[in-house]
This record gives sequence, structure tokens and C-alpha cells, in this order.
Amino acid sequence: MKKGNNDMIENLRQELNSYLHEYMSGKGSYNKKIYEAMQYSLDAGGKRIRPILFLLTYMIYKKEYRNVMEIAAAIEMIHTYSLIHDDLPSMDNDDLRRGKPTNHKVFGEGIAVLAGDGLLNEGMSLMFKHCLKDTNKNKVNACSIIAESAGVEGMVGGQTVDLLSEGAKIPIDQLYYMHSKKTGALIKAAIVSAAVYVGASEDEIDKLSYYGKKIGLAFQIKDDILDVTGDTKKLGKKVKSDANNNKTNFITTYGLNKCMEMCNSITSDCVEVLRGINRDTHDLERLTVFLLNREN
Amino acid sequence: MKKGNNDMIENLRQELNSYLHEYMSGKGSYNKKIYEAMQYSLDAGGKRIRPILFLLTYMIYKKEYRNVMEIAAAIEMIHTYSLIHDDLPSMDNDDLRRGKPTNHKVFGEGIAVLAGDGLLNEGMSLMFKHCLKDTNKNKVNACSIIAESAGVEGMVGGQTVDLLSEGAKIPIDQLYYMHSKKTGALIKAAIVSAAVYVGASEDEIDKLSYYGKKIGLAFQIKDDILDVTGDTKKLGKKVKSDANNNKTNFITTYGLNKCMEMCNSITSDCVEVLRGINRDTHDLERLTVFLLNREN
Repeated sequence: MKKGNNDMIENLRQELNSYLHEYMSGKGSYNKKIYEAMQYSLDAGGKRIRPILFLLTYMIYKKEYRNVMEIAAAIEMIHTYSLIHDDLPSMDNDDLRRGKPTNHKVFGEGIAVLAGDGLLNEGMSLMFKHCLKDTNKNKVNACSIIAESAGVEGMVGGQTVDLLSEGAKIPIDQLYYMHSKKTGALIKAAIVSAAVYVGASEDEIDKLSYYGKKIGLAFQIKDDILDVTGDTKKLGKKVKSDANNNKTNFITTYGLNKCMEMCNSITSDCVEVLRGINRDTHDLERLTVFLLNREN
Repeated sequence: MKKGNNDMIENLRQELNSYLHEYMSGKGSYNKKIYEAMQYSLDAGGKRIRPILFLLTYMIYKKEYRNVMEIAAAIEMIHTYSLIHDDLPSMDNDDLRRGKPTNHKVFGEGIAVLAGDGLLNEGMSLMFKHCLKDTNKNKVNACSIIAESAGVEGMVGGQTVDLLSEGAKIPIDQLYYMHSKKTGALIKAAIVSAAVYVGASEDEIDKLSYYGKKIGLAFQIKDDILDVTGDTKKLGKKVKSDANNNKTNFITTYGLNKCMEMCNSITSDCVEVLRGINRDTHDLERLTVFLLNREN
């Protein structure tokens, strides 16, 4: 493992922020409001974990990450659409997201539904347009993996189970299912799609796929930990919301200490897998550890 | 113009119905409910206008329409997602669609949002998977045209303007904008994408693009006519809903007689364009006239 660029993750985050902000700026006519609503949620200060995972995985193989900014941006648009819809009164009914009023609190429920729809459509469109530039199978396959992870066997399926489980104690299998779909699917897809895009070997795709699955799980357990130990100010959303909504999560299932242990051990496992790839995975490793230690 | 197959349109409709029904059958585990909700709206008896327009345009050039059933199905999924979201309480708040209770009336609002999301994602995924089978630029371009028509400069944009215009008298320009996006965009895209898919000449694509734009407009004017002259039973939804909601539409702008005239004249124009294409466009012509005379 070679030494990575310490500023790379922060650079990527800033480039993504600019890209996403610019993308929605100065557009629209009669439909101007929908660009405002989409931009509001994109600009709300996400960590950009998923697109950064995509870009860093791509960069294990290729330097020119700007060639795939469109796909990275599409991933973040798909993620942001899901947050807007999850926050709706008919879903989790959240007023606060990333420290700001949720989309429907600012723009009303109808526009929030459409802002979510708009971001999902725009993300998919961006991927098709990217494939059009220079059509090849690996690209289309990468986009297909991302699209599928967002669907009914991915994020939508997970959110369905989450919605149906509200107030009920659910079995462990179902808890794992729910999170592997709702949160895990797009995280894993971001990583695997990048490996497929660059034409990585089957062995490396397998390793990165394992890594993607595990980092998604650690991410969710950490989220549940922060829901108990974090503070509203740093998190930008209400803490203990799961406990208050009688939701089963990793803490209610395993307890706080065991969850912290699990999170540490899965993170070590992830780092181990990355080190087993005979390439410079230093930045990806840094991000992995950052996710373990994050406070929001 | 050669003689077309009189049963072809009905055949296609039935094949689409089976395809869509089968697609959602027996799938899911913990997320089973979302397949039920998506299937409910897909099975509610739509006319399948958009996918049939796609298939008939394709068939001007190529016989083997079953090769592109995936794209036709994707178009109908995207259309159905938009209906589910448009019917939501935060949007048009409709209780009845195609003679049946709307999705949120049966499954609740949260699941209805997710059923719409699921159909949109599934439609996009199906298109990526279709492109993967045998990747070529025309295919990807066709799918890109469809995806874009669903987005913020298409259906989502039109629905945004519709939502923001509620109860307000809007200028004619805005009315045309609204419908060309909300209803027209996917209709036109269904036709143009098929022409692009088969590699039609630029001249033919131009003609079909003009046809697509006009048929979409005639379709919407006819919808507004039926909103006044139709009956709830045949329409499967409430009549005079625009008048009751103080919505500007083609009737409130031009009056009934003028609208019927416009509808006839645009339809003639459409048939004329089709006859200017030196191929067998008989089935497409039949569908065009059917749309003029429909009672729902």
C-alpha cells in the first residue's frame, strides 16, 4: 500500500458539492421551483459518502476521476431523492435533516415528492447520457448495478420493510434484510459499479463486493450508535428517534457495547480486505476509518 | 401504405398486460407488499397508449417487437409511477383512477409513494438491463430519450407547474408548456425513441417527432373534452374535476367547440404526417384515430 493523498477525500467532497450545486443553478422556466427544491436538499451538506466511495474505488484503477463525475453525481442524486421521500409525513415524518428543515417543511409535501422524483429521474438520465458519450458494456453494467440497487430489491424494498415495521418488534433476519437494502444496497453498488466500470478482475470485484457489503453494515450500526450517543446539533437530526418510534434497530437488538464492538471489528475486517488488494487503496482505507469515527 | 393487421393493437395491449402482470408476480420476501402495490396499479386497466405507440413505431421498421417488450414495459411503468404520485393527497388528491380506488386509498400514502418510486426505478433498471444484452449506441440513446422525458424538463416539470397553478388562471403559453411536459413528453419520447432505436433516417425521425408532439397535444385536448362530456363510469375517474378545482385547461381557454375542432384538425395533421413516411404506418394511423374517438 502506497501513501495516499491526505486531502483527496476533502477535495472530492468539494468538487462534488460544486458539481451538484452548479448542476441545478440557473435552470428552468415555469418549472424553476423544482430546481430550487432539488438544489435545497443537495446543498444541505451531506457527507457525500456514496459518490466518494465510487470515486475512490475508481481511483484504485484510474486517475482521471473527473471522467466519471456524472456517475458520482447521479449516485448522490439518487441518495438525496431517497432522503427527501423518507422524510415525508407519510413515511418517517421528519422535520430536520442535516440540521435544516426537511424538503417538505420548506416547499410543501407535493413539491417534495416531485423534488425526490426529479432527483431520481435526473440521476438515471445522467447515467444514460454518460453511457452515450462512449458506449461500452462495462459502463452500462456499472449504471445498471446502481439503478438496480435503488429499486424494489434495493433501497425501495428496504424502505418498504422499514415503513411496515414501524412500532413492531422485528426479527434479526428482517433487521439485516431491511438495512442491507435500505442503506447497504447503494453503498455496495457505488463500490462494485466502480470496479465493474474500470474492468477490474473477478477476484478484485469479489473482494470489493465483500468490502462494500461490510462497510454498508458498519455504516448502519454506526448510525444506530449515533442515534443514541450523538447530539442533535452535530447530527443535524433528532437523536433517539428510533427508540421514540419503537423501532427495532441494532442497539435495541444487541445493546450499545456489542454494537460498538461489531462496528470496530467490521471496520478492521474492511481494512484487511482492502489491504488484500494489490493496489493503492490508502484513500479508501482512510475513508473506512473515518466512517467508524464520524460524529454525524 | 399497406394494409395493417386489424388485431395488432389489441394483441399488443394483451401482451403488455400479461408481461406487466407476470413481471410483478410471485416476487419479493419481506418487501412483498411493494410488488402487490405496484401490480395493483399496473393491473388497473390502462390503455397502454405509450408502450403501444413505442411498439407500433418500432414495427414500422422491424417485425420482432418482442425484442423490445422490456422497453415498452419500462415506458408503462414510468407512466404508472407518475399516475400514482399525481393522485397523492399532496398532489391532485384523487380517490378514483381507471374506475378503481387510487393506490394510496388501498395501500396507504407511504406505500403509494414507494410503489411509484419502485415503478420508476424498475423502469429505469429494465432499460439498463436491456441495453446490457447487446450494447449499442442507438439503444442507449433511445433509453436516454425516455429517461429524459420523465425528468424535470419533462413529466416532473409539467407536474410541478400543474401543482403550482392550482386554483390560478394561467396564461396560454404556460398551459401549453404544462401539458407538453406533463402528458406530451413521454408520448413523444415513446415514438421518437423507437425511431432512434431502429436507426431511422434523420428525416423520418423529424417527421415522427412532429407526429409525437402533435398526438400528445391532441391526446391532452381530448382528455379535457372528456372531462366535460364524458361520464364517470366510462372514464373511471371523476368528470369536471378541472372545473371544480378551478384549473385552467383547454376547455376553459378555448371552449368545447373549438377544442373539438382542434382535436380533429390535429388528428388529420398527424395522419397526414404518417402518410408522408414511405412505409407501412397503417397500425399507427389506426391508433391515432382511435385516440381521437376514445370515450375514456
